[in-house]
Amino acid sequence: MSGITLQQLAEMVGGQVVGDAQTTVFEALPLQDAANDCLTLIDGAQNVSRVNASQAVAVVTTEAYPQCDKPMLVVTDLHASFAQISQIFRPPQALPASGVDVSASVDSSARIGQGVSIGPGVTIGADCHVGEGCVLHSGVHLLAGCRLGSDCTLFPNVTLYDNTQLGDRVIVHAGCVLGAFGFGYQQRDGFHVRGAQLGWVQVEDDCEIGANTTIDRGTYGKTRIGRGTKIDNLVQIGHNCHIGQHNIICAQVGIAGSSSTDDHVVLAGQVGVVDHTHVGARVRVGAQAGIMRDVEPDQTVFGSPAIPRK
Amino acid sequence: MSGITLQQLAEMVGGQVVGDAQTTVFEALPLQDAANDCLTLIDGAQNVSRVNASQAVAVVTTEAYPQCDKPMLVVTDLHASFAQISQIFRPPQALPASGVDVSASVDSSARIGQGVSIGPGVTIGADCHVGEGCVLHSGVHLLAGCRLGSDCTLFPNVTLYDNTQLGDRVIVHAGCVLGAFGFGYQQRDGFHVRGAQLGWVQVEDDCEIGANTTIDRGTYGKTRIGRGTKIDNLVQIGHNCHIGQHNIICAQVGIAGSSSTDDHVVLAGQVGVVDHTHVGARVRVGAQAGIMRDVEPDQTVFGSPAIPRK
Amino acid sequence: MSGITLQQLAEMVGGQVVGDAQTTVFEALPLQDAANDCLTLIDGAQNVSRVNASQAVAVVTTEAYPQCDKPMLVVTDLHASFAQISQIFRPPQALPASGVDVSASVDSSARIGQGVSIGPGVTIGADCHVGEGCVLHSGVHLLAGCRLGSDCTLFPNVTLYDNTQLGDRVIVHAGCVLGAFGFGYQQRDGFHVRGAQLGWVQVEDDCEIGANTTIDRGTYGKTRIGRGTKIDNLVQIGHNCHIGQHNIICAQVGIAGSSSTDDHVVLAGQVGVVDHTHVGARVRVGAQAGIMRDVEPDQTVFGSPAIPRK
Repeated sequence: MSGITLQQLAEMVGGQVVGDAQTTVFEALPLQDAANDCLTLIDGAQNVSRVNASQAVAVVTTEAYPQCDKPMLVVTDLHASFAQISQIFRPPQALPASGVDVSASVDSSARIGQGVSIGPGVTIGADCHVGEGCVLHSGVHLLAGCRLGSDCTLFPNVTLYDNTQLGDRVIVHAGCVLGAFGFGYQQRDGFHVRGAQLGWVQVEDDCEIGANTTIDRGTYGKTRIGRGTKIDNLVQIGHNCHIGQHNIICAQVGIAGSSSTDDHVVLAGQVGVVDHTHVGARVRVGAQAGIMRDVEPDQTVFGSPAIPRK
Repeated sequence: MSGITLQQLAEMVGGQVVGDAQTTVFEALPLQDAANDCLTLIDGAQNVSRVNASQAVAVVTTEAYPQCDKPMLVVTDLHASFAQISQIFRPPQALPASGVDVSASVDSSARIGQGVSIGPGVTIGADCHVGEGCVLHSGVHLLAGCRLGSDCTLFPNVTLYDNTQLGDRVIVHAGCVLGAFGFGYQQRDGFHVRGAQLGWVQVEDDCEIGANTTIDRGTYGKTRIGRGTKIDNLVQIGHNCHIGQHNIICAQVGIAGSSSTDDHVVLAGQVGVVDHTHVGARVRVGAQAGIMRDVEPDQTVFGSPAIPRK
Repeated sequence: MSGITLQQLAEMVGGQVVGDAQTTVFEALPLQDAANDCLTLIDGAQNVSRVNASQAVAVVTTEAYPQCDKPMLVVTDLHASFAQISQIFRPPQALPASGVDVSASVDSSARIGQGVSIGPGVTIGADCHVGEGCVLHSGVHLLAGCRLGSDCTLFPNVTLYDNTQLGDRVIVHAGCVLGAFGFGYQQRDGFHVRGAQLGWVQVEDDCEIGANTTIDRGTYGKTRIGRGTKIDNLVQIGHNCHIGQHNIICAQVGIAGSSSTDDHVVLAGQVGVVDHTHVGARVRVGAQAGIMRDVEPDQTVFGSPAIPRK
C-alpha cells in the first residue's frame, strides 16, 4: 500500500488536521502495535505521552492536545473514523460467494432461500429450512429439521443438532454446538440412565454466539436465547434454560439446567449459575461469581456464593 | 399435526382422564413453554396454579389435583408417558442410514463393522477398527490406529487422535477432542520443551462425553474414563488421569494431569482438581470448588480450596 | 509384538541390567497401567514397593535399588530411554503424506510451500500463504488472508479466521478457533451494537495451542501470542491481548480483552484475568485465582481476588 497524507484522509473521512497535513502514513494501528510510519489513535489526554514516545507519525483524536508532538487528525466519532481509515489500508476480505459448493451435501427435502452461500463440506439434513442471505461457512453441519431465518452467518465447523431454530441475523462463531443432549440422568441400579432429549434450542433474532460455545437442547421444549443477547466464547448453557433479551454473557460462563435470566442481564467471565435459578432484570454479576440462588432485579453481585456489592 | 383428544392419548399411553376427555390438544410442551392448545405436565401440587394460569388446555400428572382447572391425564410414570406423547406430536428425526458416504475418506487398512454409518467428510485413518452399528456423523476425524467398539455414536466434528480406544455404546458429542497432547513441558534454557506423548485415551463402555470436551492422551500409557461415566460439555481432563466408573462430571470441570477419581464420584459445574490428586469413591463436590489435595471417600466438599461440608 | 530381553534393550538404548538380563518383556507401560509381562519405570525409591506389587516383570530406573524384586535396566536419562523403548513396542503412526487431498478446496490465489500436507476437506481461502513443511489435518479451515510460517501442524477441525498469522513450528490442536470476533459492544437504545473487528491474531514461533482453545482477533491491530508460549485446552484469550514469550497458560484459563502478560508467566488452571490488566514477568498464579488488577513482576499470587502468597 502506498502512503496517504493526513490531508487526503481528512477529505475521505471528515475532520481537521492540526500540524503538518502533508504527513504521509502507510498503516493504521492501535497504540500498542504502533510501528514506523503508521497512524494511531488515542481517546484522551492521558495517552499523549505514549503517542509522543511511539513510532507513530500521526494520531487520530477527538480533540487537539497541545502537548502532542505529532500531527493530529481531529474527528467527531473517533472509532467510526479510525475504522474507516483502517479499511483503507487493509480492505476487508471478500465474503463467500452465494451458491452451493459442489462438495456440500444438501438433503433433497431441505429448503434453501435466495442468495444463500453454502461452503465446502457443509451438510444440511432432511427438512431443514435456510432463510435468504444466510452464509454457511465450510464444515458447518445442520442435522435434520433445523430452521434458520434470514441473513444468519455460521462460521466454520458449527454443529446444529436436529430441530435447532435460529431467528434472523444470528451469528454463530466457529466450533459452536447447539442442541446437544442435556446432562440429565436418573440413577438405576448404580447406572446413570439418560432422560428424555425431545426438546430443541431456539435462538432469537440478532443474537451472536461465540466460538466453541455449547447450548444444550431442552428436555421436552426449548432452551431459549432471547433476542439481541450476545454470548462470548466457551460458554455453556444447560438444557431448558431461558435467557432473556439483550443479555451480555462473557467467556466461560456456565449456566446449569433449567435456570433463567430476565432482560439486560450482564454476566462477567467465568461466572457460574446453578440449576433452577433465576437472575432478575438488569442484574450485573462480577467475574468468577457463583450464583447459588435467585437474584432480585437491579442488583450487582460478586463472589462465590454471590452476594450484593456493599 | 391435527389434534388428538385426551381420550385417544389415554388409550395410546395408558392412564385415566379426569375432566373433559374430548379436550383436543395439538402439541405437548413443558410448562414454561406452554402455548395455546397444548398439553403440559406437572410433577406436584405446587405447580397447579401455574397450570391454571397458563395457556395449556390439559395436563399430564400422576395425581388428580382437585384445585386444577384443566382436564388431567393421570398416569403412573409421568416422564415416560409425556415423552411418548411428545413423540406423537414431534416424531424423532430419522437416524443416518448405514453405509459409507461417497465423500468420506476411509483408509484401505481400516476395518469397518456391519451396519456402520459413515457420514459426509468423515476421515478414518490407517489401521482403525470401527465396531458394528457405529454412527459417525459428518466431519468426524479418526487419526490412525483408533479402536471403536460396537454401537458408538460420534456426533459431527469429533476428533479422535491416533490410538484412541472407545468401548461399546459410547456417545461422543459434537466437537469433542480425545487424545490431544498432554500439557507437560520441561524447561531447557528458558524454553519449554514438550515431554513424551506416547500414550492414548481409553473410554470404557456406556460412557457419554459432552460437546467440545477435551481429554488428553497419557504420557506413556492411558488416560482412562471408567465404564458408565457421564461427562458434560466443555470439560477438560488432563493426561494420565484415571476416572472411575459411573462418575458424573458436570460442565466446565477441569481435572489436571495424573489425577484420579474412584467410582460414583460427582463433580458439579466448574470444579477444578489440581494435578496428582485422588478423589475417593462416592465423593460429591460442590460447584466451583477447587480440589487441592486428596479427598477421602464418601465426603461432600465445597469451596476453593475445598473442605468438607460442616 | 514378540518379546525383547532386557539385554537386547540395554544394547538398543544403552544402560546396565541388574538382575536377570534374559527377562523378556512384551510391552512398556507406566506403573499405574502395568500389566503382565510388561516393563515399567520408576523415578525414585519411594515407588519400589509399588513395582514389587505390580504385574510388571522388569523396571527402568536411574539407580539400582537393593529392595527392588524385579530385574532393572539402569539408564542415565530415564524418560528419554523409556520413550525410546515405548516406541519399539508401539511404533508411532505415520505422519500424513505431503500433497493436497483431492477433496480439499484451495483457492487459486493461495501460495502453498514445498512438502506441505493438506488433508481431506481442508479449505484454504484467497491470498493465504502456507509455509513449507506445514501439515493441515482434515477439516482445517483457513479463511482468506492467513499466513503460516514453515513446519506448522494444524490438527483436525481447526478454524483460522481471516488474516490470522502463525510463525514457524506452531502447533494448533484440534478444534481451536483463532481470530473470531472480539466481545466488544456499544449500547445503543438498549441494543448491543458490535464494535470494529478489523484486527487479527498473531501467534509467534514455537507456540503450541491446545484443543478447543479460542483466541479472538484485535479490534484494529493484533492479539499477540509471544514466541515459545504454550497454551493448554479450552483457554479463552480476548481481543487485543498481548501475551509475552514463554508463558505457560493452563487449561480453562480466561484472559479478558486488552490484558497482557510479560515473559515467563505461569497461569494455572481456571485462572481468570479481567480486562485491561497487566501481569508482570515471571509471575506465577495459582489455580482458580482471579486477577483483578495489575501484578508486579516475580510474585506468586493466589485466590480470587488474587493476592501474593504470604
